Amino acid sequence: MAGPPPPLNDVRAAVAAALTGLSPGELVLVACSGGPDSLALADALAYCAPQAGLPAGLLTVDHGLQDGSASRAADVRAWALSCGLVPAEVLTVSVDGPGGPEAAARTARYAALDAASDRLGAAAVLLGHTRDDQAETVLLGLARGSGIRAAAGMPARRGRYLRPLLDLPRSTTTAACAAAGLKPWCDPHNSDPAYARSRLRKLLPTLEEAAPGVTAGLARTAKMARADADLLDSLAASVQAVSKDGLLVAVVATEPEPIRRRVLHSWASTITPRPYDLSSRHIASLDALIVSYRGQGAVALPGGVRVRRSGAHLRAD
Amino acid sequence: MAGPPPPLNDVRAAVAAALTGLSPGELVLVACSGGPDSLALADALAYCAPQAGLPAGLLTVDHGLQDGSASRAADVRAWALSCGLVPAEVLTVSVDGPGGPEAAARTARYAALDAASDRLGAAAVLLGHTRDDQAETVLLGLARGSGIRAAAGMPARRGRYLRPLLDLPRSTTTAACAAAGLKPWCDPHNSDPAYARSRLRKLLPTLEEAAPGVTAGLARTAKMARADADLLDSLAASVQAVSKDGLLVAVVATEPEPIRRRVLHSWASTITPRPYDLSSRHIASLDALIVSYRGQGAVALPGGVRVRRSGAHLRAD
Repeated sequence: MAGPPPPLNDVRAAVAAALTGLSPGELVLVACSGGPDSLALADALAYCAPQAGLPAGLLTVDHGLQDGSASRAADVRAWALSCGLVPAEVLTVSVDGPGGPEAAARTARYAALDAASDRLGAAAVLLGHTRDDQAETVLLGLARGSGIRAAAGMPARRGRYLRPLLDLPRSTTTAACAAAGLKPWCDPHNSDPAYARSRLRKLLPTLEEAAPGVTAGLARTAKMARADADLLDSLAASVQAVSKDGLLVAVVATEPEPIRRRVLHSWASTITPRPYDLSSRHIASLDALIVSYRGQGAVALPGGVRVRRSGAHLRAD
Repeated sequence: MAGPPPPLNDVRAAVAAALTGLSPGELVLVACSGGPDSLALADALAYCAPQAGLPAGLLTVDHGLQDGSASRAADVRAWALSCGLVPAEVLTVSVDGPGGPEAAARTARYAALDAASDRLGAAAVLLGHTRDDQAETVLLGLARGSGIRAAAGMPARRGRYLRPLLDLPRSTTTAACAAAGLKPWCDPHNSDPAYARSRLRKLLPTLEEAAPGVTAGLARTAKMARADADLLDSLAASVQAVSKDGLLVAVVATEPEPIRRRVLHSWASTITPRPYDLSSRHIASLDALIVSYRGQGAVALPGGVRVRRSGAHLRAD
């Protein structure tokens, strides 16, 4: 007897593996935009969840940013119900938070997913990010140039959010939809050159052609970089350098540069109202106050905070 | 009084900074292909070295791979002598080592530079790699997907080799050559699509357009990744896990994954004749023998080496 087509099988195997950590009876939800990645994911969940004894439902977010988004969300919900994903809910959000449009939509989306998962008592929420999304995320992180944490991309698991498809290429989800006779929706934002991610998405196949294996390589690097960054962060967290008078120079000075950099970044994050604007340049200037102090003046951090060396301490004015 | 044009000034400042570690009278050499990066570098060295009290010479390698390479090398040498770079030598090499043509040429080149530097008693050899070269190297490393060491790119200093231009874009060296009235040679290999690096080089401006800042970001990440990788490597090197009977499972098992991965990689490198073919997959299989051993069989490493769990040890057959 022939099994299911390979791409369908690959997506199902990835979802089944992600579900192994759950106990029978626990509710699993899938976040589904109706695009090829999350549609293939939802389809695989509808197949796998009953076999694992898990109730499974679907959440689709209507960002209200495009004409017809409400009817599309309703279509996704109706499809979910037809294949046994119950509950299936449309979450309507308004995108008006701070940051660029991508960041604001993301924040609104996760807030809605969090609230619905709490209300429904979900043990896990599956997200449809693929290996290509991971490569794009890593490249965008590298473009920020903020170190190996940026190269770590998205985790396969964070809290109840699981990303079962991180090791599969986008071509597999597209092929799985075709094999299952599903008609995914193609978000025009994904090819809108106004978005950095869309521009990168268009470029990735060319990059892959120039440096074969780069997509998979970026994803593998992300996994190792995450573990490395976690370990270095935990080593830095164990350094007892903060006192009521500021940061103890003598304690920080004995650490190697990667640890100093992290200790300084953590401390600086607590004293500026804009920790996300801290750059590697700010941290390097703080480090100079520690290891190459020659009487230089205060270092200006984002948000108008100034840090100076004062005897045995770094202090914020 | 107007100073030199900004690009010329930037290259000179970078070279002057790189020379500060040297003592008056020490010989500095520059490796120069005649291309825009190394020509701008050599020109800046001719300007800066006398100010620092340093004798400075030039080495140019003739790989003998292209028609006219000997006369081009002779031209570079004549130019060097005309601007006071003495000694100026043409090093003729034959490219027939193992690996691809790029790797073989690189190996032959560094062997010739090493031998000439020893013979001439040089304290430092300057190399013309720019920020763009660094970004390409990091991307090629990421394509291999072998972790943050691959993302670390080229060091600003390794032994006597110095790379003063790693923080400058290629556009600066090109502009510096124009400002100095120099006519750099354009290596056809640099645009030959047979080479991964050439393909990537062509793509980098488009990538930069899609994700602005990616070139500088890759270079910044490289610097931090190098420091991070060095620290993790040194932590792993301090783990005493090798015994005469093999690798001590109990010692490795208590370490976090990034340290285990490095201990296993170091050990595996000593038992296979082909350490450069070790992949993250091999290391993950070895790690499974340590942390998730359920009686599985031997792990095959490159070069026909097989590693099995045997009591308290991992052993190579």
